[in-house]
Amino acid sequence: MSKVEVKKVVVAYSGGLDTSVIIPWLKENYDCEVVAFVADVGQGAEELEGVEEKAIASGASEVYVADLKEEMVKEYIYPSLKTGALYEGKYLLGTSMARPIIAKAQVECARNVGADALAHGCTGKGNDQVRFEGAFAALAPDLHVIAPWREWDLVSREECLDYLAERNIPCSASLTKIYSRDANAWHISTEGGVLEQTWNAPNDDCWAWTKSPEEASNEAEYVTIKVEKCEVVAVDGKDMSPYEALMYLNDKGVEHGIGRIDIVENRLVGMKSRGCYETPGGTIMMEALRAVEQLVLDKSSFEFREELGVKAAHLIYDGRWFTPLCESIIAASESLAQDVNGEVVIKLYKGQATATQKRSDNSLYCEAFATFGEDEVYDQSHAEGFIRLYSLASRIRTLNSQK
Amino acid sequence: MSKVEVKKVVVAYSGGLDTSVIIPWLKENYDCEVVAFVADVGQGAEELEGVEEKAIASGASEVYVADLKEEMVKEYIYPSLKTGALYEGKYLLGTSMARPIIAKAQVECARNVGADALAHGCTGKGNDQVRFEGAFAALAPDLHVIAPWREWDLVSREECLDYLAERNIPCSASLTKIYSRDANAWHISTEGGVLEQTWNAPNDDCWAWTKSPEEASNEAEYVTIKVEKCEVVAVDGKDMSPYEALMYLNDKGVEHGIGRIDIVENRLVGMKSRGCYETPGGTIMMEALRAVEQLVLDKSSFEFREELGVKAAHLIYDGRWFTPLCESIIAASESLAQDVNGEVVIKLYKGQATATQKRSDNSLYCEAFATFGEDEVYDQSHAEGFIRLYSLASRIRTLNSQK
Amino acid sequence: MSKVEVKKVVVAYSGGLDTSVIIPWLKENYDCEVVAFVADVGQGAEELEGVEEKAIASGASEVYVADLKEEMVKEYIYPSLKTGALYEGKYLLGTSMARPIIAKAQVECARNVGADALAHGCTGKGNDQVRFEGAFAALAPDLHVIAPWREWDLVSREECLDYLAERNIPCSASLTKIYSRDANAWHISTEGGVLEQTWNAPNDDCWAWTKSPEEASNEAEYVTIKVEKCEVVAVDGKDMSPYEALMYLNDKGVEHGIGRIDIVENRLVGMKSRGCYETPGGTIMMEALRAVEQLVLDKSSFEFREELGVKAAHLIYDGRWFTPLCESIIAASESLAQDVNGEVVIKLYKGQATATQKRSDNSLYCEAFATFGEDEVYDQSHAEGFIRLYSLASRIRTLNSQK
Amino acid sequence: MSKVEVKKVVVAYSGGLDTSVIIPWLKENYDCEVVAFVADVGQGAEELEGVEEKAIASGASEVYVADLKEEMVKEYIYPSLKTGALYEGKYLLGTSMARPIIAKAQVECARNVGADALAHGCTGKGNDQVRFEGAFAALAPDLHVIAPWREWDLVSREECLDYLAERNIPCSASLTKIYSRDANAWHISTEGGVLEQTWNAPNDDCWAWTKSPEEASNEAEYVTIKVEKCEVVAVDGKDMSPYEALMYLNDKGVEHGIGRIDIVENRLVGMKSRGCYETPGGTIMMEALRAVEQLVLDKSSFEFREELGVKAAHLIYDGRWFTPLCESIIAASESLAQDVNGEVVIKLYKGQATATQKRSDNSLYCEAFATFGEDEVYDQSHAEGFIRLYSLASRIRTLNSQK
Repeated sequence: MSKVEVKKVVVAYSGGLDTSVIIPWLKENYDCEVVAFVADVGQGAEELEGVEEKAIASGASEVYVADLKEEMVKEYIYPSLKTGALYEGKYLLGTSMARPIIAKAQVECARNVGADALAHGCTGKGNDQVRFEGAFAALAPDLHVIAPWREWDLVSREECLDYLAERNIPCSASLTKIYSRDANAWHISTEGGVLEQTWNAPNDDCWAWTKSPEEASNEAEYVTIKVEKCEVVAVDGKDMSPYEALMYLNDKGVEHGIGRIDIVENRLVGMKSRGCYETPGGTIMMEALRAVEQLVLDKSSFEFREELGVKAAHLIYDGRWFTPLCESIIAASESLAQDVNGEVVIKLYKGQATATQKRSDNSLYCEAFATFGEDEVYDQSHAEGFIRLYSLASRIRTLNSQK
Repeated sequence: MSKVEVKKVVVAYSGGLDTSVIIPWLKENYDCEVVAFVADVGQGAEELEGVEEKAIASGASEVYVADLKEEMVKEYIYPSLKTGALYEGKYLLGTSMARPIIAKAQVECARNVGADALAHGCTGKGNDQVRFEGAFAALAPDLHVIAPWREWDLVSREECLDYLAERNIPCSASLTKIYSRDANAWHISTEGGVLEQTWNAPNDDCWAWTKSPEEASNEAEYVTIKVEKCEVVAVDGKDMSPYEALMYLNDKGVEHGIGRIDIVENRLVGMKSRGCYETPGGTIMMEALRAVEQLVLDKSSFEFREELGVKAAHLIYDGRWFTPLCESIIAASESLAQDVNGEVVIKLYKGQATATQKRSDNSLYCEAFATFGEDEVYDQSHAEGFIRLYSLASRIRTLNSQK
Repeated sequence: MSKVEVKKVVVAYSGGLDTSVIIPWLKENYDCEVVAFVADVGQGAEELEGVEEKAIASGASEVYVADLKEEMVKEYIYPSLKTGALYEGKYLLGTSMARPIIAKAQVECARNVGADALAHGCTGKGNDQVRFEGAFAALAPDLHVIAPWREWDLVSREECLDYLAERNIPCSASLTKIYSRDANAWHISTEGGVLEQTWNAPNDDCWAWTKSPEEASNEAEYVTIKVEKCEVVAVDGKDMSPYEALMYLNDKGVEHGIGRIDIVENRLVGMKSRGCYETPGGTIMMEALRAVEQLVLDKSSFEFREELGVKAAHLIYDGRWFTPLCESIIAASESLAQDVNGEVVIKLYKGQATATQKRSDNSLYCEAFATFGEDEVYDQSHAEGFIRLYSLASRIRTLNSQK
Repeated sequence: MSKVEVKKVVVAYSGGLDTSVIIPWLKENYDCEVVAFVADVGQGAEELEGVEEKAIASGASEVYVADLKEEMVKEYIYPSLKTGALYEGKYLLGTSMARPIIAKAQVECARNVGADALAHGCTGKGNDQVRFEGAFAALAPDLHVIAPWREWDLVSREECLDYLAERNIPCSASLTKIYSRDANAWHISTEGGVLEQTWNAPNDDCWAWTKSPEEASNEAEYVTIKVEKCEVVAVDGKDMSPYEALMYLNDKGVEHGIGRIDIVENRLVGMKSRGCYETPGGTIMMEALRAVEQLVLDKSSFEFREELGVKAAHLIYDGRWFTPLCESIIAASESLAQDVNGEVVIKLYKGQATATQKRSDNSLYCEAFATFGEDEVYDQSHAEGFIRLYSLASRIRTLNSQK
């Protein structure tokens, strides 16, 4: 396949080894100007330090850094949480939720600088390539997409380092890197190393942020979370922005070993992979939101929210954020979220976040109904009628078969 | 409403205060013979001790005790586990799963003794009345059903005790009982008392079986579980029957504080209730089965299994076990279970059961695919084609709108 | 059960035999003032003629007639159509959709006149009692609800006529009425008579509005329908309000025998019933909307819309319009409806409405892609990559089993 | 990409232009022996006439013709019908259902002749390539797959004819062929020509089998269909095999213009296409099966069957027949089918097949319940209790908001 002609490409740049190679590779192979786009999604000051200089040193003509932290939590994470999305029952979708916002900001950057192409540093085996390119297809189908990992023949860190060395591009990356990691404000993922065999238990190196339950405090700690429309609006009595609340809860969660999962998951591209994910603050948030829902949602609404969660998890994981289907599901869950207001106390202890107290002005829990004494609101004789009609089809069916 | 005429009624008898009152009440109000049916579903030797004598002392003409423990785990719990059913995301359905097997055995007893009616001791506010009568409707619609709690005007323990005392029927029940409990081999539930206000945290009295995470061992313990067709067949190297495996894992779980949940749930009859449930062994089993599924089920099968779990949870909770729909869903999950074979190591520590190692001959995880080096099995260029077609509709849609 | 005390009740009044009896019965049995509320939902001038006089003659203190025709089509029928709701695959929900709007207007009337109770004339066997009382529960749980058919002991038309005669209340109702009918702008239903045996075919008397296919015109006729956001906005080149469009299409449909169905359906209350429904204009509308959707919705959106349709059909049928779940589902379908714009030509012939031509500015159909010649937009080699990844799990699974 | 080495390939051969070219092309480009495999799925004697000679003349070393007609109807079509699958609400999946059985038989042929590769004549834009290769992946992942249409550079009928002429291979195919067709016992599809623009109505040439409603008989005809376990076992009083029943009903349907649909559908590969499908007998069968289901399935079972139908339609359309998910869904629908026994009379008239009479020993329709007179089986007062509990959550919610 002959390469397309491009003049100016915006690459999603992280400052790591891969994207450092991509800049010169794009210039050499496409004979084009390369603009580096760096998304700050809360991956940490360390990763962002000196990123602009690095990009220029690698050959970028310009560098743009966009602070997406508040927007990511408010516009991507909170809507996802309202759906209840947990991929394959466990994964809080930390990497998945970051991709669409990065791609969207990268497209905006491309429009601003008049680029005609977009590039990313995802490999050809993972989900992220689909998430980036799925977003590009929805937002900028007119721009070319370049995925160097699927084109070049570099296949190891050593070759990448050699590539940079030959071009005198400085790089502090080490030759060996056992684990592959991805971090943002919400989570950090770890893949590779001992995790590549499912019969290996994760070791200490597989966890990057959180204390182990064993090392976590021997004293439980309690946080109080205020919820409005299924969003966290205050913690421990203090109003907080979405990103502030997440940071606050991350700190708590890290200390108590909260939010570790070790999962073998189905990638969209047909294979399984295994990863360790840490989502300390997010796990606490999820527990709080689900606890308020317990008070507020009626039976059939709760069931539908569970179904929405299963669907949304797949859509978000699969890079389908910017699709009519994902918008429809978010509209449905936003509707259910209107009543999800309340307050929850979460106990943090040795790896577990557990809602111990909860209340809501919208609570359908009604002590007068639930208790066993006399009451005026509920006439027990109604139950007979309910049961008779509820089981009428069963009754007719068996009576038929007895004829 | 005039009472139906019945000659001989089989009552589901537990030996507790309620069903002790029901026997004389039935005799007096229906002028009929009363047969006591006791189901041993693993509620414990203490509860069953002297139950036959008690029933006779209360006025039963005959007493039948049926050992349903193995059958319950094999025929009711294992099929439920295969669906992944977790009611409202949390509850392992311990009470719900016991009701259909008790009702079925009670109906068989009624057929054997030639009874023309069935009675149970469930109140008019709960789910259990629906579960019993739903099963009766499906299995014996020709028999009358008597639900004394919905008929009589006894509304307190004191009145029940007086009722027995007036008739010189011995009863060891205490005047006050703060919590309402239900136990079987799978779980114990606790309702009432401080739990009646959702803003109260559960106290130590709310937990009947398990140690608290704080009191649990400071040393993690590991169990190895062998799974065939999504059933536990051996633990720690020893083949075990379903009930044996459950008992073994219950002991482990109790020590490590595993399987506590505190939930506000939607009852079928339209109100919410709050309960603390302990399912120590079951929680370990569930973790093991889900871990093998992670290896074995492909993406769309996994998603369908999750949907089946949501549906099955509602059906089982709602007392719909003996319906064509429940049979259909179980047929679907049995089909998916055929490949769910493997071995899992579960770490037990301070309230958590966590699968740390897992393997399966049917595993779709394939190290050769998942790793990042060179390989022959997966051609990264295929990803481009995949992504192009996968996002084609998005592309066309946006190109349209740009026209 | 002792009767509640009420002072002023608003009854949903139709002018028919049942509700004519209800007015004096309420006055005698509840010693209360009775206000008649008449909803004009397009049931026809004949049914409404003299309805106010009749109500007063029956003993109503006041009569209110509310014209709900446009609102019903715009706010109840169009949202339902967007979900694709077809109950049990066939029924266009004509009676179901009318109940919530009548109940809502009746509640508003009750608020305006300061009533403390609501009454309806639905029998104790049907769905409508649940629909009315479900709406009352959601909109006015503080008002008492009286359902005379479940209270009184009148069981035949003869007894009802006698009841009126004894009180000198004039009534033109006939002694025998073979079929039970319900009509509004959207549809007319027919139950009873020969339909009570499912092995009887419907006869000519079972159809009230439409010509039979045999009697319908031998010439096909075509109508052109313009659709915006999944609503009909113009027909045959003329802008029309929702109600106008429905009336116009009803006239066409009646002539061509469109929209007859004969169904045995599951009532909410556990039994099956059989009915003949005629929805001439609605059937044409549905065909038009579905045809535009074919052009506009991508594969997974279409599938979700189908799922929404199944869910919405049950919710609407079951009288759950004013619930958070129904609102959530409508929010989801409104979201999908945003792109559903276009134009459709429908052929009407001998009982069938068939979309023969369709176009849309949002169409994802793209001749360049779909045809078999050379093209630049679609690279056939992409298909290989797509298929390889799409079937990768199958491949791994079988390779495993061949080991 | 370098070509794989193969020694012997089995090609799915139809005798048409495409597959006639494929045989010499495979020999020349892969230097291998080519075995022609012909599946008789009821495409008609005309298409099969002389097919063996043609294959040999094209260069095949061997030809195998497999009669799959009965197996296709019994093992593929009937299970699909039980799920209720209708792709995108309309399409009876005629082409989709034929692909897995052909692929399976082709694999068996390959095993028998010791081939190491499989080939098919599907283009790179359609669904059929995915269906064939999806089946191959599940049944024979060890065999190579060759898809000539995605490899060669022939892009028109003219080039294909030239290719054969240059090699002196006789071919009776015409230079121009406006419509692309695919036929089997179940259906015939027509694509291309005027259909390529969605604003064109189909003309007479778009329909290959059925009379138009206008030309169809002016007299209605009735067929009586006996159903057991949701399969057609007899028609008009005569026991018939699955294939015989289909043929009999095809003849009837053709005469009455039954089973025409004109649809724009979402292909799996991301684009939309438009086709006219004729499924005369199948449409009648579907109407009969759905009619018995109306009598037999309870409300929630019916709803689940509808959901299964939506899912199954996508799976079958998408070539996922041989997957655990499809097996699971078929297991679920087989379970529901156990009670679907009965008899139906279908009226055929001017393009419509309408069930007019239906009965079943398993019918849940019960005249005594459904009628409006006095009865003993149903106590109307039960409805009050049912409604109170059914709407309790609504009541509590609104009472809360009124506080």
